[in-house]
Amino acid sequence: MDFDALWAELAPIGRYAGTGGYRRFSWTVADAECRAWFTERATGLGLDVRADRNGNLWAWWGDPAAGDAVATGSHLDSVPDGGAFDGPLGVVTALAAVGRLRESGARPRRPVAVVAFVEEEGARFGVPCLGSRLLTGAIGPEWSGGLRDADGVSWAEAYAAAGGEPEAMGADPELLGRLGTFVELHVEQGRGLVERGAAVGVASSIWPHGRWRMDFSGAADHAGTTRLADRRDPMLPFASTVLAAREEAAIAGAVATVGKVFVEPNGTNAIPSAVHAWLDARAPDEAALEATVAGVLGAARRYAAKERVEFAESRESYTGEVEFETGLRDRLSLLLGGAPILGTGAGHDAGVLSAHVPTAMLFVRNPTGISHSPAEHAETADRHAGVAALTRVLEELACA
Amino acid sequence: MDFDALWAELAPIGRYAGTGGYRRFSWTVADAECRAWFTERATGLGLDVRADRNGNLWAWWGDPAAGDAVATGSHLDSVPDGGAFDGPLGVVTALAAVGRLRESGARPRRPVAVVAFVEEEGARFGVPCLGSRLLTGAIGPEWSGGLRDADGVSWAEAYAAAGGEPEAMGADPELLGRLGTFVELHVEQGRGLVERGAAVGVASSIWPHGRWRMDFSGAADHAGTTRLADRRDPMLPFASTVLAAREEAAIAGAVATVGKVFVEPNGTNAIPSAVHAWLDARAPDEAALEATVAGVLGAARRYAAKERVEFAESRESYTGEVEFETGLRDRLSLLLGGAPILGTGAGHDAGVLSAHVPTAMLFVRNPTGISHSPAEHAETADRHAGVAALTRVLEELACA
Repeated sequence: MDFDALWAELAPIGRYAGTGGYRRFSWTVADAECRAWFTERATGLGLDVRADRNGNLWAWWGDPAAGDAVATGSHLDSVPDGGAFDGPLGVVTALAAVGRLRESGARPRRPVAVVAFVEEEGARFGVPCLGSRLLTGAIGPEWSGGLRDADGVSWAEAYAAAGGEPEAMGADPELLGRLGTFVELHVEQGRGLVERGAAVGVASSIWPHGRWRMDFSGAADHAGTTRLADRRDPMLPFASTVLAAREEAAIAGAVATVGKVFVEPNGTNAIPSAVHAWLDARAPDEAALEATVAGVLGAARRYAAKERVEFAESRESYTGEVEFETGLRDRLSLLLGGAPILGTGAGHDAGVLSAHVPTAMLFVRNPTGISHSPAEHAETADRHAGVAALTRVLEELACA
Repeated sequence: MDFDALWAELAPIGRYAGTGGYRRFSWTVADAECRAWFTERATGLGLDVRADRNGNLWAWWGDPAAGDAVATGSHLDSVPDGGAFDGPLGVVTALAAVGRLRESGARPRRPVAVVAFVEEEGARFGVPCLGSRLLTGAIGPEWSGGLRDADGVSWAEAYAAAGGEPEAMGADPELLGRLGTFVELHVEQGRGLVERGAAVGVASSIWPHGRWRMDFSGAADHAGTTRLADRRDPMLPFASTVLAAREEAAIAGAVATVGKVFVEPNGTNAIPSAVHAWLDARAPDEAALEATVAGVLGAARRYAAKERVEFAESRESYTGEVEFETGLRDRLSLLLGGAPILGTGAGHDAGVLSAHVPTAMLFVRNPTGISHSPAEHAETADRHAGVAALTRVLEELACA
């Protein structure tokens, strides 16, 4: 099957008609359908599909034990009402590229693997790149097992219910040691390639970034009968903190976003008892990121104290600056006819793996630059350019 | 059964162990259990229970067709994670008072009715006092039938699924015409009776109040890759509006609350596409209320425009100032040994009925004044004082 046929098969899974966006969250029915589809198609290509001890799916061409493998892939999960491309484009392109190589009669010197990582977005359990972080040991299994979704279901429970073995989770140095190179293809989440007039580019670096949970706890009371002076309303310091986040980011040349909020009890005529919010912050360097986050959390503490509201913060994830291996980067750019090299503010499994394995990323042009939205897009011609580029890269790295 | 036994029976229904609060929303399983319990207990008292055409339950002692009835009661639904008393105290006290009168061999000259109104809190469908507003015609059945809950289920659908007949909904002048007096007993939602050292009081008036829905619509995008200048983030004008609401209310001597918020898509790493929020505002007079709301909505429009975010507002409910009938009010105060007379910022079905039927309210002391929270409370002795007071009132109005 070619790219278009594979893409068309995957497209309806987990799509929510109400928004046109995707809701492919880890260990849900939609996720199971994506994984079953991946397994069936990879097996159909003659690959040997295995889940690793953390639930990531690996489809092997050649003997993994031979080592120095060339792995490529991305993830299948989505943000809430996300687009079709973020993640799946890399997985489907990888399957299409391997299919093309096999059809051409190529005989790789190195084993080739197509991988689909779990919970890259952190949409259900709050921690992005959880599958790759577990694999590399960046996050311990005890900690991840205790992560809970909005309904209180833990990662370990959800993983077990989906057929996984939570007791086997954790760092997997043997698998990691078998990887010689990792290349992730991804839709671009900005307009860098549009500005450069190129269909495909190569990543230089990923901004340092992280997520912080902020809990404002006041006292629920009647919205009609409680005097302003008697209130301990957590909505007020939360609102001030949202505005502070924008200001601090602007000062530091960073970006800061409050995109996820839960209010308790969330009734029109009740002063909230609590507002839970998440800060996503990213900056060109770690000093700027630290300054931004310190500014936001400091403001949150001050505003909360002013309203007699309790404030608690916790860092849910953090990734330092990732500079992809410059030798590999320049080699791929050259191989692809001088493909532009560009940085990104988005985190990826490739960023996590790059601390352990020589890693590169390819980006495919996104006409609007919009991502994490149903408007996320790549033109058909650019998708095909992505397949051609990844095929060329695998040929060069694994077969030449 | 006495008050304590009735109270103990109702207490576990719809209680959410996680918060200790109640989730009794209209036409849910918990609501059906409350209604079944009411029907069984009222029938056991020898009353004739009928749902009116809008789903409100009426338990009759005597022939409704005789007219000039004395009705008493309140509601059984709750705000999310609300307390046990707001609503149910009035219903259970009414059943206990009627039980006491029947045991004493009283023979009412006027029919007596105990009523349990539906959707008083508006917690599920957004409009408070919906049952009494439908009954009086303050809201038309076409409009209410189209109200939707957070899952998109309409009032008409939910009502039909619970066995109601949506096509029969609407103003019921015949039933309304049979009522000669309505008395609602309610837990106080403030500390007026604590300050006055009295277990029971009589209401003077209800502040004008209303709810406004505010929809901020921007553009979802990636939280890491979208430049601040390129964002259309609805969270920012929403936050500014929360702060404006507090300021405008303080200036006008009013209260304003943003207690309910939904964010789309509500993902940590996605700029929101939309923030939906509800403003609850109340003031001592209508001019102050209008000034407050105009100030808040004006600020919302300005802040939204500044961030290139669309803003839409809609008034979901509005109740002008309610001054309860002074003759009835003074008569009840005198009857109850000079019970204090006090106003409230909370809306009630009694406020809706007062435009059509001579209406009074009794309040029962709340030690903390807290309401719409599991901390809402009335001491056992004060609950019994409420039963004694309502029994005395029914005796005076219906039997003397």
